[in-house]
Amino acid sequence: MGETIAQKIIREHLVSGRMEPGEEIALRIDQTLTQDATGTMAYLEFETMGIPRVRTELSVAYIDHNTLQSGFMNADDHRFIQSMARKYGLRFSRPGNGICHQVHLERFGRPGKTLIGSDSHTPTGGGIGMLAMGAGGLDVAVAMGGGAYYINMPKMYKVNLTGRLRPFVTAKDISLEILRILSVKGGVGAIIEWGGPGIRELSVPERATITNMGTELGATTSIFPSDEVTKAFLEAEGRGEDFVPLASDPDAVYDRIIDIDLDTLTPKIACPHSPDAVVDVASIEGTKVDQVCIGSCTNSSLYDMLKVAALLKGRVISPDVSLSVSPGSRQVLTMLADCGALSDILSSGARVLECACGPCIGMGFSPNSGGVSLRTFNRNFEGRSGTKDGKVYLVSPETAVAAAIFGEITDPAKLGELPPIHMPEAFRIDDSAILQPAPVEEAAEVEILRGPNIRECPAGEPVEDEFSAPLALKVGDNITTDHIMPAGSRILPYRSNIPYLSQFCFEVCDPGFPERAKKAGRSMIVGGENYGQGSSREHAALVPLYLGVGAVIAKSFARIHAANLINAGIMPLTFENPEDYEQLQQGDELKLSGIGKGMENGTITLLDETNGKSFPLRCAYTERQREILRAGGLLKYVAKEAQ
Amino acid sequence: MGETIAQKIIREHLVSGRMEPGEEIALRIDQTLTQDATGTMAYLEFETMGIPRVRTELSVAYIDHNTLQSGFMNADDHRFIQSMARKYGLRFSRPGNGICHQVHLERFGRPGKTLIGSDSHTPTGGGIGMLAMGAGGLDVAVAMGGGAYYINMPKMYKVNLTGRLRPFVTAKDISLEILRILSVKGGVGAIIEWGGPGIRELSVPERATITNMGTELGATTSIFPSDEVTKAFLEAEGRGEDFVPLASDPDAVYDRIIDIDLDTLTPKIACPHSPDAVVDVASIEGTKVDQVCIGSCTNSSLYDMLKVAALLKGRVISPDVSLSVSPGSRQVLTMLADCGALSDILSSGARVLECACGPCIGMGFSPNSGGVSLRTFNRNFEGRSGTKDGKVYLVSPETAVAAAIFGEITDPAKLGELPPIHMPEAFRIDDSAILQPAPVEEAAEVEILRGPNIRECPAGEPVEDEFSAPLALKVGDNITTDHIMPAGSRILPYRSNIPYLSQFCFEVCDPGFPERAKKAGRSMIVGGENYGQGSSREHAALVPLYLGVGAVIAKSFARIHAANLINAGIMPLTFENPEDYEQLQQGDELKLSGIGKGMENGTITLLDETNGKSFPLRCAYTERQREILRAGGLLKYVAKEAQ
Repeated sequence: MGETIAQKIIREHLVSGRMEPGEEIALRIDQTLTQDATGTMAYLEFETMGIPRVRTELSVAYIDHNTLQSGFMNADDHRFIQSMARKYGLRFSRPGNGICHQVHLERFGRPGKTLIGSDSHTPTGGGIGMLAMGAGGLDVAVAMGGGAYYINMPKMYKVNLTGRLRPFVTAKDISLEILRILSVKGGVGAIIEWGGPGIRELSVPERATITNMGTELGATTSIFPSDEVTKAFLEAEGRGEDFVPLASDPDAVYDRIIDIDLDTLTPKIACPHSPDAVVDVASIEGTKVDQVCIGSCTNSSLYDMLKVAALLKGRVISPDVSLSVSPGSRQVLTMLADCGALSDILSSGARVLECACGPCIGMGFSPNSGGVSLRTFNRNFEGRSGTKDGKVYLVSPETAVAAAIFGEITDPAKLGELPPIHMPEAFRIDDSAILQPAPVEEAAEVEILRGPNIRECPAGEPVEDEFSAPLALKVGDNITTDHIMPAGSRILPYRSNIPYLSQFCFEVCDPGFPERAKKAGRSMIVGGENYGQGSSREHAALVPLYLGVGAVIAKSFARIHAANLINAGIMPLTFENPEDYEQLQQGDELKLSGIGKGMENGTITLLDETNGKSFPLRCAYTERQREILRAGGLLKYVAKEAQ
Repeated sequence: MGETIAQKIIREHLVSGRMEPGEEIALRIDQTLTQDATGTMAYLEFETMGIPRVRTELSVAYIDHNTLQSGFMNADDHRFIQSMARKYGLRFSRPGNGICHQVHLERFGRPGKTLIGSDSHTPTGGGIGMLAMGAGGLDVAVAMGGGAYYINMPKMYKVNLTGRLRPFVTAKDISLEILRILSVKGGVGAIIEWGGPGIRELSVPERATITNMGTELGATTSIFPSDEVTKAFLEAEGRGEDFVPLASDPDAVYDRIIDIDLDTLTPKIACPHSPDAVVDVASIEGTKVDQVCIGSCTNSSLYDMLKVAALLKGRVISPDVSLSVSPGSRQVLTMLADCGALSDILSSGARVLECACGPCIGMGFSPNSGGVSLRTFNRNFEGRSGTKDGKVYLVSPETAVAAAIFGEITDPAKLGELPPIHMPEAFRIDDSAILQPAPVEEAAEVEILRGPNIRECPAGEPVEDEFSAPLALKVGDNITTDHIMPAGSRILPYRSNIPYLSQFCFEVCDPGFPERAKKAGRSMIVGGENYGQGSSREHAALVPLYLGVGAVIAKSFARIHAANLINAGIMPLTFENPEDYEQLQQGDELKLSGIGKGMENGTITLLDETNGKSFPLRCAYTERQREILRAGGLLKYVAKEAQ
């Protein structure tokens, strides 16, 4: 039977497991990347593992998230990560050098390789034919140490593009169209391969826009073939030798095939507050716009920026619109300056921000109260812009320019003829802002630079046969990781300081919890259905670990959070009888017995010592998960394995 | 008797008063400028005055301080100011268009004119031969309404420059040298005129660097002649018609003359934490540097940036140094891009930040913990960088580049030969980011855009003959306006929200004060010597006003704060016998009687109803100040005068 592109890469990297959808498989990882908001913790975890040098083919530490630097914390984190990279054998992309996904595409991505990154938009690399996936920081740390990355074998979807994009219809509109078709849950458990005759005219950055936004479908990742387009891109980046061709077999089998006819595709827009609330731009023309933002890992390539500059040239933006343009990388910015395009952008009245994530993660450029902001980004979640009542729409660069010029949502075709865009045959290669690691023989001398905000990663304890602790917090259904560990510009700079973060744990549900848990020493939490849904942040497990939480008992768990709890050394347990949830009261003294045997059987007994009742709990762990819990978390498990 | 340049401009603008040092004089103001951190309040005050259109020759509202936009507050302020400018007849310089002082120099400054600005570095305009002064927001509002600006007639100082600057010695080093000579108090009560044969080779931006830093001397302002250099600058800006020659009379008399020999001047550096802690760069060579920042209203002209680019060209900065470059204006940035200089800067590894105040006011780019930061800025006060224990040094752009390249404080001459800098004959003129006001006939239609953070300016009450209130707060000597109304990136975005700010009033001295004062309704404060020293922020008067403070009794007051209290409608009163301070206890019920007559006599009696004792208090108000207090503050006084 023929294979898909993803199946081929998986087979070549399979360490263990069967390639059957839903089965756990372990993959060898060729490359890793981190950004700074998740990276500091990932490197703290890597340090704990005691491995002297990364064991991947390539690992890169990027700084692109916390670049505003309001206070010492960000600069301290940058220095810490830089010194870690130097000591442990990673490349370090300096702040200002660009957004991790854009720079990685330009300088490091290689078709056929596996990449995991501690950023959910790592699938951007699928545009160049990589199997690129977002992962938790600890998973990335393990991969840097040479360990495998575990996922459940995904299903295979295919999107078949026919026809060709008309003027002012772009790769971003394709991304929005697939979100309209599949919804934000439509890609869960699947890898999406893009193919068909319509991909031939999509450049690598356009393909990367599409794989980038595959994250919003919930897909494991998205991937394009490696073809002549890929080859031309790599050659223009001076990396022709990195090219390998890559295609699915003609008889590959897909779980689902979706056709999109580019000939009939129209400019799309995602309305507040979900990337899949997609309608035709034409259908909401005339909506007044306050702010327009162009950039982010979705639409910040040279091609995107040249189009923007060509459309802005000789025009002045509406006095009622504030327009920001953030080129994706230093390469893009420099080339824009050299060809005069930057001046065209500036002369229109646009503000040029640093090459970084910036407004996309709410790091600056927050819109006015209740403001309408059109953004070429990938997410428009409520409040993400930093303005609680801001209304964010997702659009293509062309639609963004049209809104900036006309002051309202406008079909970009109204901009008139699209000027021809001349892409250079070769990019300007200058890697001087990517620092090399110290040579192996000097690595021991490299001092790790720590600021007062950079604190140790908490360590789990091996699960014992009996565990008694008070029920420190009882919460309801659908608790998100944002409930457990809030984010935002107030808290994000403290991602490397678990003790500080801990004071905000469950702040929205019960601000007294952190103190109560600390006082108890060890404790348990009880939750309802779908506990731990939402963002994959591992801080939602590490912070409770720090506060002494040893077990979380719920009606059901979100998949990634359950894995994060186990990685941290915290037992996730589900009620055998969901109605038992009602019997437990906050403050009760709880006792888990026969844990060792119970983990094997899949059932552990909970005694509520306060009311004297007993309840059966389920724990469907794999053997590897049991080993992790017995070791006291993934870090200790890995250290043990390494011995 | 001959006159100095400043005396000539003052005579031409004198509304009332005698031009005798120390005497109060009133000046007609030709131009005003505001920045956004002080501007929102200034425009709220202007609005209260009920004047339909500004009455100056030119008023410009700049956005350059709060440009990070972490949250909705900044964008709301920008929109509010933009709508005010449009309605009331001001130009509006959009965010991203540059730093107020740099843009004003380029596009609006005119020799011989008077300018006041709600920013302490407004004297930058002295580089082009303006009489340019920093002032409180309310003073600027009054001037916009056509009212006079009151100062005490300053003394006249002259700095005589001889010889010529050697390579790698710059205007910034002249600024640092005069700070070394005079100290940060050395210019108090004086206007400093720069002259002598050495000024002939100083371009307008270099002169502006010097007048900009005159603020750090405590001078009322600093000024250069308007000569051939000025003419060439104005012509290059396409404003040759704005030129008028301006020079002091040969027999002008100065209170003090200082000579500086440029031939022997060496590169200087101001050490933490004062601009006058100046030593030779050579004397502290080798100090390790973590961060270098180039820009700010002091050193962000095209000439500064071209020098920086020429020195960085072909070089890569030290991996241990983080370098930021913030061009002063869109004009500068665009011209840098067009001539390739921007690429030279970027290729060195520098981060290019937006054209704004940025790191100079602690708005981003804060150094690492305990980090050494070399900055081409004008202030290195402790904590101003946003990093409490950061060590900030002030230097020229050349010395900054040397540190960035070598990673330590280095004599810039070690950079080798200074490449020749070719200044263009004409600047690139593009005022499309400076919005024009609405025509008079449309002004009434313009809606003022207010966000939820923009609250009314509190109004004072006419002083009555008797005033009884509890003593809500008793503080000691040397209370600064930072004690009264703290600043910093946490609070600065709320400068247009007095009710919100009020919760931080006296936070460092007594966090219970705001609640106590509110509960009391009306109250008094007692302080020691030098009450209200430091920054001129009017918020240190408006916030107590909002909290109901009607009088402040102290052993002595700082001059500007006493004026701000009167402007707000709060009586500043001093103890006739300083030892009476001891008799008053926080919580005592106080009563001021015979206020009307007392203000005339200069003495008012205070009765402490709690202990039954009486104390004489002094109040040496001018007739104008009495009128202001009787009216209920400057705003009401102006409104009354206008009737």
